[in-house]
Amino acid sequence: MNNKIYDLIIIGAGPAGMSAAIYAKRASLEVMIIEAVSPGGKMIKTAEIENWPGLKQTTGPELAFSMFDHINSLAVEYQAGHVSRIEDGEIKKIITDDHQTYLTKSIIIATGTVERKLGIPGEEKFAGKGVSYCAVCDGALFKNKVVTVIGGGNSALEEAIYLAKFASQVNIVIRRDVFRADALVQEDIQNNSKINIILKHIPIEIQGDTVLKNIILENVDTKERQSLMSDGLFPFIGLDPITNFVQDLGITNQQGYINVDANMRTAIPGLYAAGDVIDKGLRQIVTASSDGAIAAQQVIKYLDDNK
Amino acid sequence: MNNKIYDLIIIGAGPAGMSAAIYAKRASLEVMIIEAVSPGGKMIKTAEIENWPGLKQTTGPELAFSMFDHINSLAVEYQAGHVSRIEDGEIKKIITDDHQTYLTKSIIIATGTVERKLGIPGEEKFAGKGVSYCAVCDGALFKNKVVTVIGGGNSALEEAIYLAKFASQVNIVIRRDVFRADALVQEDIQNNSKINIILKHIPIEIQGDTVLKNIILENVDTKERQSLMSDGLFPFIGLDPITNFVQDLGITNQQGYINVDANMRTAIPGLYAAGDVIDKGLRQIVTASSDGAIAAQQVIKYLDDNK
Repeated sequence: MNNKIYDLIIIGAGPAGMSAAIYAKRASLEVMIIEAVSPGGKMIKTAEIENWPGLKQTTGPELAFSMFDHINSLAVEYQAGHVSRIEDGEIKKIITDDHQTYLTKSIIIATGTVERKLGIPGEEKFAGKGVSYCAVCDGALFKNKVVTVIGGGNSALEEAIYLAKFASQVNIVIRRDVFRADALVQEDIQNNSKINIILKHIPIEIQGDTVLKNIILENVDTKERQSLMSDGLFPFIGLDPITNFVQDLGITNQQGYINVDANMRTAIPGLYAAGDVIDKGLRQIVTASSDGAIAAQQVIKYLDDNK
Repeated sequence: MNNKIYDLIIIGAGPAGMSAAIYAKRASLEVMIIEAVSPGGKMIKTAEIENWPGLKQTTGPELAFSMFDHINSLAVEYQAGHVSRIEDGEIKKIITDDHQTYLTKSIIIATGTVERKLGIPGEEKFAGKGVSYCAVCDGALFKNKVVTVIGGGNSALEEAIYLAKFASQVNIVIRRDVFRADALVQEDIQNNSKINIILKHIPIEIQGDTVLKNIILENVDTKERQSLMSDGLFPFIGLDPITNFVQDLGITNQQGYINVDANMRTAIPGLYAAGDVIDKGLRQIVTASSDGAIAAQQVIKYLDDNK
């Protein structure tokens, strides 16, 4: 056990966590950021970004790298690790999967969300063998192949557009007969000759041998089934908050999102949350970054008040 | 009168307004942005920016230009104009000083704040003749001269550091004996040999002939007065919201800031506010940008619900 007591430990190095780190470190706090995967969070999995103010067009990994470069330039301590538990107290404990314990006066949880699984036969078996939850990560593996995206929101459609750069054909399967996505993205979809839209269907089974070969679709009205030949499957049907490690703290809502006030405070003093993991209306890079800044500012105030 | 009915008119082209424009336009709304001064808002008056996530170091005008370039690339309609009045209704009217009337289904107010005046003798007389509220705009005019900054917050200290690039000496006068600014900025101040700190004093009069020559300071404890030779004076003692044009709508608090809920909604349907002009805890470029995105998203929902 490292006996150092940090002013602030931030769990998660997405835009919320990194923005919080920038604000906290610039205020001279002893701050560490713990990340389970890689810096950038969901940005790493995002192809094109066109709504980060000031950048007409960039990619998720580029913006992720810029923010990581930013926290490195401020010498924010960075630790790879998967947090399994938080113990509350005047000095709080953060315990990781590999049994490391870190001590801190305050915590900002910025763990974000994870893609929801379809929960159908074959999904687990073909994970990494055709089934992927990240077009940016795996898209290039499907050059001149047929892939299928499940879902009709912005993320799903943006993934589809990205995949069409590699694939010979991209099917988009949605349950309803209209998309939830923004008009502009829908337009891009309509204008892309590689993209084939299948309305009012849901996937019910994934089939193949050593790799994925077919997706069984069911018509939501007639219940009629068809087999769709596909080399890849990219479900994008929603997200779930990463909050299993705080289930015992009573700070989450029924869906697992963390309840905070306008100042990003949870019900536990010294414990804050920011970004996609909180219960809120709009989950964007810019809103997460704002949450992070607000949470850090509140931590500074909290530490001042509890000196 | 232009008879076109916009989906959304945004008043103010600072980070909140421009972020809102990006989100609204990407959702294919007919959107116009009206700005009284120049695009960028308070960013135009900001020298160094080190806490916009992803940019280790930039200048306010650079970030302002990037955002303006962003909205131009989306073909957001831009109108120079000073709004004097809003008339509510199913179709709302925006009336400008030069008697133009614009019609719109929804409005986002993102007018921000303006620097508070000292309210002491000589301030008006020497405005533009030594008294300036914008170091970035006027700093270069004081090359090798002595300037004085009033105020101890982040903005005041950042202005002082910027002015020290040109001036031979920069005095910082604060009422208290400690600064309100962040630790990092304070450190920069301490390390700058051109900067001279005068604690526990307030300015009570500004003197000169055709231009500013002296500032009369008063010790807050002893009430003793001294004359400080200075060629320039930069007050940075606080900000007031720009909401005079909505005083009759009952949407502001006692300080004049606009009351909104977490979704940036005022008490009037279809009327939203975002950025520094709203009653909130932390006023930063990133928080303003987030507000703008949220407000735009709510406008999209509002227009959908009221089709």
